[in-house]
Amino acid sequence: MDPDAVARAFVEHYYRTFDTNRAGLSTLYQDNSMLSFEGPKTQGVAAITAKLTSLPFQQCHHNISTIDCQPSGPTGSVLVFVSGSLQLAGEQHALKFSQMFHLIPTPQASFYVLNDIFRLNYA
Amino acid sequence: MDPDAVARAFVEHYYRTFDTNRAGLSTLYQDNSMLSFEGPKTQGVAAITAKLTSLPFQQCHHNISTIDCQPSGPTGSVLVFVSGSLQLAGEQHALKFSQMFHLIPTPQASFYVLNDIFRLNYA
Repeated sequence: MDPDAVARAFVEHYYRTFDTNRAGLSTLYQDNSMLSFEGPKTQGVAAITAKLTSLPFQQCHHNISTIDCQPSGPTGSVLVFVSGSLQLAGEQHALKFSQMFHLIPTPQASFYVLNDIFRLNYA
Repeated sequence: MDPDAVARAFVEHYYRTFDTNRAGLSTLYQDNSMLSFEGPKTQGVAAITAKLTSLPFQQCHHNISTIDCQPSGPTGSVLVFVSGSLQLAGEQHALKFSQMFHLIPTPQASFYVLNDIFRLNYA
């Protein structure tokens, strides 16, 4: 499978789900998944879902600026590196962010997120 | 080995080498290594070294703001996610950047860079 096509489809799905049904992101993680969000690390689908759904903002919209991807080895896994901005409801200025995902193929011919690292880019 | 210690040591070594002896970065890559630098992808130690040493600036200094890391699987590989700023000689303003590395253990108990993705964060 073309890593660029995987990356684009994943990014489109991930941020649309984040912006419309954040709890639905739980299906993308498994129990060995890790999330680093602005530093602190969380592991496992329950803890990651709890973290994502308890962030101190509700409505938001991600705008994606760049998507880079590379195969992370010979087994079909893909690294995805995203930059963009995050508009929070009621805030005048969007926040720039960078985020990376490590996508692992599943037996169902899909992918799950093993690694997820998010950082705001402070100006 | 502690992934955080690996990440800190790698980041310190990588950017010090970049800023003082950029051609010396070649020892960190192998022939299956990939570099995405502001979009375009390069593969292999020769092509990556050529890319890094032909960037349109000579003297520079990286300042590191954040280092995140996670194990990328059960084999000792480590993902490193860096944010910081890049000061070019003669330029008034530093450029913000984000960069990720996928470090793979070598038989010599060291690591090489399999994946390297660099992006400037435009304000």
